[in-house]
Amino acid sequence: MKKINVAIMGIGTVGGGTYEILTKNRDFLRKTQGVDFEVTKVLDKNLERIRSFGIPDGKAASSVDEIAADKDISIVVETMGGVEPAKTFIEKVLRAGKSVVTANKELVSKHWPDLEAAAKKGGAGLYFEASCVGGVPIIRALQEGLQANKVDSLVGIINGTTNYILSKMTDEGVSYADALKEAQQLGYAEFNPTADVEGFDAAYKLSILSSLAFHTCIPYTCVYREGITNITKADIKAGRELGYVIKLLAIGKRSGDRVEVRVHPTFVPVGHPLAGVSGSFNAVFVHGDFVDDLMFYGRGAGARPTGSAIVSDVVYAAKRSEPLYSDFVNDGKVAPGINVSTDFESKYYLSVSVKDAPGVLAALAGVFARCGVSIETVLQRGQDGGASISFLTHPSSESDVKKAVAEIEDLDDANKVVSLIRVLS
Amino acid sequence: MKKINVAIMGIGTVGGGTYEILTKNRDFLRKTQGVDFEVTKVLDKNLERIRSFGIPDGKAASSVDEIAADKDISIVVETMGGVEPAKTFIEKVLRAGKSVVTANKELVSKHWPDLEAAAKKGGAGLYFEASCVGGVPIIRALQEGLQANKVDSLVGIINGTTNYILSKMTDEGVSYADALKEAQQLGYAEFNPTADVEGFDAAYKLSILSSLAFHTCIPYTCVYREGITNITKADIKAGRELGYVIKLLAIGKRSGDRVEVRVHPTFVPVGHPLAGVSGSFNAVFVHGDFVDDLMFYGRGAGARPTGSAIVSDVVYAAKRSEPLYSDFVNDGKVAPGINVSTDFESKYYLSVSVKDAPGVLAALAGVFARCGVSIETVLQRGQDGGASISFLTHPSSESDVKKAVAEIEDLDDANKVVSLIRVLS
Repeated sequence: MKKINVAIMGIGTVGGGTYEILTKNRDFLRKTQGVDFEVTKVLDKNLERIRSFGIPDGKAASSVDEIAADKDISIVVETMGGVEPAKTFIEKVLRAGKSVVTANKELVSKHWPDLEAAAKKGGAGLYFEASCVGGVPIIRALQEGLQANKVDSLVGIINGTTNYILSKMTDEGVSYADALKEAQQLGYAEFNPTADVEGFDAAYKLSILSSLAFHTCIPYTCVYREGITNITKADIKAGRELGYVIKLLAIGKRSGDRVEVRVHPTFVPVGHPLAGVSGSFNAVFVHGDFVDDLMFYGRGAGARPTGSAIVSDVVYAAKRSEPLYSDFVNDGKVAPGINVSTDFESKYYLSVSVKDAPGVLAALAGVFARCGVSIETVLQRGQDGGASISFLTHPSSESDVKKAVAEIEDLDDANKVVSLIRVLS
Repeated sequence: MKKINVAIMGIGTVGGGTYEILTKNRDFLRKTQGVDFEVTKVLDKNLERIRSFGIPDGKAASSVDEIAADKDISIVVETMGGVEPAKTFIEKVLRAGKSVVTANKELVSKHWPDLEAAAKKGGAGLYFEASCVGGVPIIRALQEGLQANKVDSLVGIINGTTNYILSKMTDEGVSYADALKEAQQLGYAEFNPTADVEGFDAAYKLSILSSLAFHTCIPYTCVYREGITNITKADIKAGRELGYVIKLLAIGKRSGDRVEVRVHPTFVPVGHPLAGVSGSFNAVFVHGDFVDDLMFYGRGAGARPTGSAIVSDVVYAAKRSEPLYSDFVNDGKVAPGINVSTDFESKYYLSVSVKDAPGVLAALAGVFARCGVSIETVLQRGQDGGASISFLTHPSSESDVKKAVAEIEDLDDANKVVSLIRVLS
């Protein structure tokens, strides 16, 4: 039987989950895959952490060089996270001819070309199913299940932390601050939650997924990004009244040579399958020219689901006779001729706080008309000493809506656009 | 650039869809896959049908032998359907070393070992993503996306025709007969609908999917099968009152060495993601020991989605350096030590028509108690000249429930169990 020695670099939650699967399901993998996988080396600066997973001291590697030099190791799992030293370590082992399996979305989205170049140099594979949407095999589907199709859209809930927070706000009526605090206590959000709540994590993943879906590099810096920190209880209530649930969506679209990629809070119609994706679950909707609509749903994070994706990649790497590389020029640049547009079209929800005086609605309606934004629904409410008017627009361009927002706030010092939320249609 | 010549055997709806994709997306596939696919031969006894897809007469093959002998053809698509002559044709081209891509679930579920043996003999690949769940890449996911996991359950809506009929009955309150008639008029159901409405089609697919998920042959003859022909408007109404939607589910479960595989109408709780899968859409829920819950959702049939799966398999076949075979002993028999049980456990809904007389409920309750079936909910209704009592049980074994049914009908000539529907919990 084929024997494959595996090293794990970084033995935190996900690294530990990976070790657990490779150990617990070792016999199962021997039987079903005909391969005997053994974790022979683990690299982590914290020996206690290594021990906490029941890993014998003898497996602790002293340095990445020890792993790179070990002729018996053919696959290295990277679960350290962050850019450095992960990048240096990965490149070192790739150049030494060892295939790498990583869950590191930040690193892949920022330095994929360098990593792939190192992989090609070493004749090794680079696999990162675990970097996007936890245990859901979405990358395998995009690379090897939907090749027939020109994918024209990809819409997903791909960050578990923000989905947990928004679900909590929606289901229990708590504020953003309280929901975040609870998410932190439960370990769903980090002490410094910026990467999740400001949409960076989702932007990294969208960059990877849309590069694969659209067959061109889509650097994460191209992704329009807006987090959930300004979402209020009032927004959630207004959404409910209008038949929407609020979600942080990652949206990638391609139409001819025009691409748009964006991460922002979005009102999703309650009947849409994404509206029911709650808590730490994730889901991605994909539309292809022939396959039509598809949805992939599952746990977006966690040691065991992410470990599942990692170990499935380890098996995949072990059984492929040749590495699989990206099917586009992976130079970190959008392919010539393709235009990443930031002026996308959407329906919008706007809530404006105004002075409660006659003629206000007429003035606002005039601004929208001048800016070419057509209104579908208007809701007006009295407030203490003022009023609030909410609008739902027909599909409009981002630039026209932003122009209208500026004009509305210029119209009167009392006017303030307190919410601007895009609506999935 | 690598050039791959493809033949298509059987140019009906799905074969035509396949030809359309390979033609329309030919440049796209050259660019993204680095392979130039050309359909060079089409086999169909009806030349008019070949012409109807705009295929030039020069591509019409006179026989399967012409395709088998064509040294330039390396991949053959089979979209004839049925067992013969598809089996003979496929085996012939496989033995000639040509990889086969098929959408034929009946053939694969009945003769997979023979087909795989022929493939191995010819050193060719055998791919059948299109045989299950239309355009959804569920087979790729089971084979190459979830290898880390022991899959313990697989629950799906995998027949579009019955889902269309049941959705129609649910949404519009029409009878089974009327819904079937409309499905036939729209081309969703065949003139002879038996394969779909009696659950054969779902059983073929479940046999294939559970063989892959559980790593052993699960012949379709092992699948417990019950169709939708006895489902009434009253069942749908009762389900709604109890918070359920009725679906034809295919269920595969594995626990240790015990496997159960079954296709039957099922009450699905309205909040379950499968409850929202309507019309011709399909979905499969998969649970693995590490990945937890996953759902795959998409169009379960149709020329274009099925064509998408076929062409994606064609690309896959063209780019693999070695064929992929099943990872278990594919001899058509359940692996030694594994037991396919027919006495599964479920919650049940039973509706019993009875004489409207005192003591009836007590008598029925006594039968359930004697048979070890514990009751969760009782609903009693008066009817013209009689009454109907419905029961929802706690999880009970099939054999106990069947015993209770027999005893209830023996108790009094007027008693009849008019509905027995399993409930997903």
